[in-house]
Amino acid sequence: MNIKNKIQLLLATLLFFVVSCKAQTKETSNTKKSNKQDHPSLILTKAGVQKIRAQLGTIPLFDETLAKVKAEVDAEILNGIEVPIPKDFSGGYTHERHKKNFLILQKAGVLYQILNDEKYAEYVKQVLLEYAKIYPTLPVHPQTRSYARGKLFWQCLNDSNWLVYVSQAYDCVYNYLSETERKLLEKDLFRPFAKYISVDNPQFFNRVHNHSTWGNVAVGMIALVMDDSKLLENALHGLKTDNIDPNAKDNDGGFIKKKGQKVGFLANLEEPFSPDGYYTEGPYYQRYAMYPFLVFAEALQNVKPELKIFEYKDGVLLKSITTLLNLTDAEGNFFPLNDGQKGMSYYSRELVSAVDIGYYFGGNQTDLLSIAKKQGEVLLDDTGLAVAIGIRDELETPFIKKSIDLSDGKNGEEGGVAILRANGSKEEHALVMKYSAHGLSHGHYDKLSFSYYEGANEVIQDYGMARFVNIQQKGGGNYLKENTTWAKQTIAHNTIVQNETSHFRGDFETGSAHHSEKYLFDVSNPNIQIISATESNAYPGTQFHRTMAIIKEDDFESPYLLDIIKINSETENQYDLPYYYLGQIMSANFKYNKPDVLKPLGTKNGYQHLWNEGEGKSDTGNAKISWFNNERFYTLSSVVSKDDELMFTRIGAHDPNFNLRNDPGFIIRKKNNKDAYFVTVLESHGHYDSVSEIATNAFTNIKNLALVYNDENFIAINIEAVNGNTSMFLFSFKDNSKTSKHQIKINDRTYEWIGAYKLIEINKKS
Amino acid sequence: MNIKNKIQLLLATLLFFVVSCKAQTKETSNTKKSNKQDHPSLILTKAGVQKIRAQLGTIPLFDETLAKVKAEVDAEILNGIEVPIPKDFSGGYTHERHKKNFLILQKAGVLYQILNDEKYAEYVKQVLLEYAKIYPTLPVHPQTRSYARGKLFWQCLNDSNWLVYVSQAYDCVYNYLSETERKLLEKDLFRPFAKYISVDNPQFFNRVHNHSTWGNVAVGMIALVMDDSKLLENALHGLKTDNIDPNAKDNDGGFIKKKGQKVGFLANLEEPFSPDGYYTEGPYYQRYAMYPFLVFAEALQNVKPELKIFEYKDGVLLKSITTLLNLTDAEGNFFPLNDGQKGMSYYSRELVSAVDIGYYFGGNQTDLLSIAKKQGEVLLDDTGLAVAIGIRDELETPFIKKSIDLSDGKNGEEGGVAILRANGSKEEHALVMKYSAHGLSHGHYDKLSFSYYEGANEVIQDYGMARFVNIQQKGGGNYLKENTTWAKQTIAHNTIVQNETSHFRGDFETGSAHHSEKYLFDVSNPNIQIISATESNAYPGTQFHRTMAIIKEDDFESPYLLDIIKINSETENQYDLPYYYLGQIMSANFKYNKPDVLKPLGTKNGYQHLWNEGEGKSDTGNAKISWFNNERFYTLSSVVSKDDELMFTRIGAHDPNFNLRNDPGFIIRKKNNKDAYFVTVLESHGHYDSVSEIATNAFTNIKNLALVYNDENFIAINIEAVNGNTSMFLFSFKDNSKTSKHQIKINDRTYEWIGAYKLIEINKKS
Repeated sequence: MNIKNKIQLLLATLLFFVVSCKAQTKETSNTKKSNKQDHPSLILTKAGVQKIRAQLGTIPLFDETLAKVKAEVDAEILNGIEVPIPKDFSGGYTHERHKKNFLILQKAGVLYQILNDEKYAEYVKQVLLEYAKIYPTLPVHPQTRSYARGKLFWQCLNDSNWLVYVSQAYDCVYNYLSETERKLLEKDLFRPFAKYISVDNPQFFNRVHNHSTWGNVAVGMIALVMDDSKLLENALHGLKTDNIDPNAKDNDGGFIKKKGQKVGFLANLEEPFSPDGYYTEGPYYQRYAMYPFLVFAEALQNVKPELKIFEYKDGVLLKSITTLLNLTDAEGNFFPLNDGQKGMSYYSRELVSAVDIGYYFGGNQTDLLSIAKKQGEVLLDDTGLAVAIGIRDELETPFIKKSIDLSDGKNGEEGGVAILRANGSKEEHALVMKYSAHGLSHGHYDKLSFSYYEGANEVIQDYGMARFVNIQQKGGGNYLKENTTWAKQTIAHNTIVQNETSHFRGDFETGSAHHSEKYLFDVSNPNIQIISATESNAYPGTQFHRTMAIIKEDDFESPYLLDIIKINSETENQYDLPYYYLGQIMSANFKYNKPDVLKPLGTKNGYQHLWNEGEGKSDTGNAKISWFNNERFYTLSSVVSKDDELMFTRIGAHDPNFNLRNDPGFIIRKKNNKDAYFVTVLESHGHYDSVSEIATNAFTNIKNLALVYNDENFIAINIEAVNGNTSMFLFSFKDNSKTSKHQIKINDRTYEWIGAYKLIEINKKS
Repeated sequence: MNIKNKIQLLLATLLFFVVSCKAQTKETSNTKKSNKQDHPSLILTKAGVQKIRAQLGTIPLFDETLAKVKAEVDAEILNGIEVPIPKDFSGGYTHERHKKNFLILQKAGVLYQILNDEKYAEYVKQVLLEYAKIYPTLPVHPQTRSYARGKLFWQCLNDSNWLVYVSQAYDCVYNYLSETERKLLEKDLFRPFAKYISVDNPQFFNRVHNHSTWGNVAVGMIALVMDDSKLLENALHGLKTDNIDPNAKDNDGGFIKKKGQKVGFLANLEEPFSPDGYYTEGPYYQRYAMYPFLVFAEALQNVKPELKIFEYKDGVLLKSITTLLNLTDAEGNFFPLNDGQKGMSYYSRELVSAVDIGYYFGGNQTDLLSIAKKQGEVLLDDTGLAVAIGIRDELETPFIKKSIDLSDGKNGEEGGVAILRANGSKEEHALVMKYSAHGLSHGHYDKLSFSYYEGANEVIQDYGMARFVNIQQKGGGNYLKENTTWAKQTIAHNTIVQNETSHFRGDFETGSAHHSEKYLFDVSNPNIQIISATESNAYPGTQFHRTMAIIKEDDFESPYLLDIIKINSETENQYDLPYYYLGQIMSANFKYNKPDVLKPLGTKNGYQHLWNEGEGKSDTGNAKISWFNNERFYTLSSVVSKDDELMFTRIGAHDPNFNLRNDPGFIIRKKNNKDAYFVTVLESHGHYDSVSEIATNAFTNIKNLALVYNDENFIAINIEAVNGNTSMFLFSFKDNSKTSKHQIKINDRTYEWIGAYKLIEINKKS
């Protein structure tokens, strides 16, 4: 904290004491105005406000947040009110202005309650009256891209954001306003606003989708403030009638509504969350949806405790918070599964809400406090107060991310996402393996794909989405064409592509009908953690079975990743397996030619975006490439035949507007096979310091990787270290029981083991 | 400091007290062995050691460093002695082992003196005896790449490193050894070693080059230990005879020796350093040479104070330390002028020495203490002790980097390097403009080139060298072919290339004969800092005049860079001006086509390494591109004609081993011109936060940039901001006097100013 902040905090703290005294005397006159329902009652409660006021100046994190929010709102009040006629896409002036308005209004409402300073209530009132002036005559937003255009913003989604936040502001100043003012605001602004995003746009409101969650919650929140049970009913259960065409799609290509599908807030809680709290769209959108889910849950708990919303579906809302925190790398960035913008993390305001609400309503789990402490701010309500007190009292315990398997699907029966975590010599290694359902309109076509992290370094990356959210120069900050032509395609991911065609032919409807199946998840032995899953619908007639294990062995500096893909098909095909490493190639153990002219690798399905930077073949049985990134060395070793094509690629072809990152990749291609095995080991090893200029352990520790046995039931792989020590990995494809006994014979020697897999030392030289 | 370190420190501290007591009693018996010259006397002195021992445990930074060094040496002693027969290039086992040995020996010697524990002296003795065993029969090193092959290493340079460090170890244990042992070591190891790197390799020893500096110092250091005045004479003034062919070159392409050139340590101090303390090879090699320069100076000062080495050439050695510290970015990384590996910084061990020695012998400048504090370690000698005491006593003051102009050349008459620094809204902006001499064999062909930094972010990068120092996979860690074909070529730099040919046709001899000329350096006004220089030899018949100014104006969030190049030629030529920005293109104000197939931009002079990623033309009079990097936006705006070709490039063509970084560039090409102007503004603006997803100030603030007047004497440029405010930059090409009056007429309006340049408001709208 610099001096400026310290002074701010000091001033704020002094102010609180003055205000707290004033508060005692003014309270009565304010409450006189209240009608049958108490206000505030959604996020702040009357009792909560009393408690907060009483403790101002004694809880550092709460006081700091308050001082920061106050400084921000005060600056905005000084700046003056701006309520422009809507015109721009995200990133543009009117969009960003209206967005700022709703964020500031919510904060100003809270400041009014906590500081009891009418200047904030007056500001909220004046801004709301401005909105009430323009809203009745506002046309639909001029930008036409959305399937559900808003009025303030280009899509109803953002209008709903606005109402979710502004409802809270209204709740906070409700008693400050005269009845006439309230009537005016409700008639000209809130009721038509709620109607527009629901009744007038059922294709937006009556869905199971993060969009609709926002819509439902927006209507629900304003319903709670206005104590309107009919509106609340719509929010919770959707509109009774909507006449939505079951074939209709949104502008992201997602279906609007299946026939007979339940809708409304409860359905949005029911269907996209698995029993493990995994949200089918992926962590980026889970984060986005967490705010409305939790803030409405908090409001419902405060106003309608009889609904027991936090116990709904076996407490899935609270579970989802822990799940989401587990879906992050070492620095708290969400794994960019499906459409996800990299860099989004648990430092986002949505996660501040989630952690605080989770702590308060979820039994005060002290590990959440360590996340809140890193976040460095809290909600200015009962939940944030509780968190800040917990931190002041040093109750926090570390939030330990474990290896977990998260089921997908309403009932947890539609595949899932597994995360294996192991400690390396330097930093945690994390494998993210995706064998989930499609993930609605934000899903990518990447069955059995993976990404790999060392600390916060991406070792094998998932591209994430092709979008620059809110950066206007890039397609108005919206999804770019390349999101469809590249980021969603299978070849953009670290998984098998058959015949240069994406899974499910890139067809959303087909993809949405299927999911992969778990075969095995076992992390009981910290030295061999394993996830194994199958996919049989991505290409009809072809079966994939991918098994990934993080293995710790004494001969290796760090845990290594063993990756085994077994493919069986009724037809001969070409199989491509890309690895999107990050860094610069240091060496390869095979000859390759880098062409004098770069051509795209293909013409469609994402291949048109890949430059072919070089090709080679290996006649040693192994293809090995080493690269360097962030002061570390990595080596990928793969069992290959002399006919396998080894290709170096770089993203960026057919990218007329520089929308893609020019990242490298390495593809192993097997042609004209019905059945095939991809067996690969990924190592992290060594270090280079550019100040001391010393390189340590810069070479792979693998002398040879060999497929020594395979049939339809079993596989055996020899991993020979440079010192000659050899381990054999044995695996059963058909029997995942922990207790079954297996036996195979290799070169007249018999190997026996119990359970689906086993790692044995077969040659210990040192 | 973690707990482990704390315990280490505690143990070390306890040990010191015990040892200090012991020291008092043992000292006498040790000194009995001493011969006519005291030992130690080079880096440690007898008096200094007494002082250090007396204060152990009371000076945190010294004690911490000592504990760290002790832990390191103890681990090596435990590991056992390894003195392998030499075989490998840098990065390989024998190379790295011998390198580690000399570093550890030096430290063990120091520990013996400070801790008075004979185990360290015994270790040094045993290792030296091992070397004495192998050295007499060692052949020349088997790797043949060097023009001066060593015996322990592939080049005499590294052998010299060895002797510079080991001489210190020998000095420390001199009195511990018996006379017989000393005689043996001198006969079998030190004298033949010194002879081999001097008399046997005059092409290495008798040069003005960082190599020879190491050689001279190696011989000089061992001469001081052995008190051998003839050897010392060789070290200071070179060999009397050498028979070096004046046309001979080294394996980097540098000349060995000019006819009649003075050689030896003093000549190496005299010639490559300018009076400002700039070392002509550039900061990376200045850093490398600083260690031998300063450690030998320290030894000479201790043993031969009558030489007054620190006063030599007006105190250039001490000056050079401040100069080198100024040649760093905000995080202390050296600007990679000429051959320089990025990431090398003032955290290197050479700079720890430099800062400590500079502080001790340079009058205790307290700003050096703030650098030493960041370095977090000190030399274990009188100088380090002084620094650690200064830090303990909180004497440090900030080291403030200013805008400076550093002359190049022995007499400061061969051009120079200017650094302009200005504070932006977020971080310091720094322009590095090079108008120096060639820089010996490590020089690049980039007259009037520049690089630009914002904080530690490279905005417009200098590529640095094409080498991975000590990473064996990459050409044994040595210079790569691409260093010559790419990194040294003019097109690899941000300066003018005429007819796709490098400056001086890339000819080392021609380039070495010339330098650019300063026209103007003026930083008296913090709102307009300016450097201007000319080059008339890079292309005979063509004159370049480049003027760069960092300008602060109220209409701009951050300072912007104005870049004006005036070209006059006797012939029609094509002129290319590349800007190697880093980041992803956000937008351009002109149409461009990205090709379906990437071809190299040319066939030679570095052009063969550039992919042509897209071409366009602008008919608006301005070409503007914006990019995004590290959460910031940047825009380059340039005055162009509709015929100028605008090209997007990416490094990486004809790079068979992935030796180059695939970084982007933007080239403005003007064809068929005798005379031409390149007028460009570089802005840094705005910010994007991927957690809040808010973009601020994401667009350029320049509406239009116009060349409104030009003749052979003057230029006038209008810089129009988006709000309509316009500034005019006026400049005189022929008269750099501060007092001359100038007058030009534009559209019937007369503009007058005094001095070479002026920025005036011509249209203030808001």
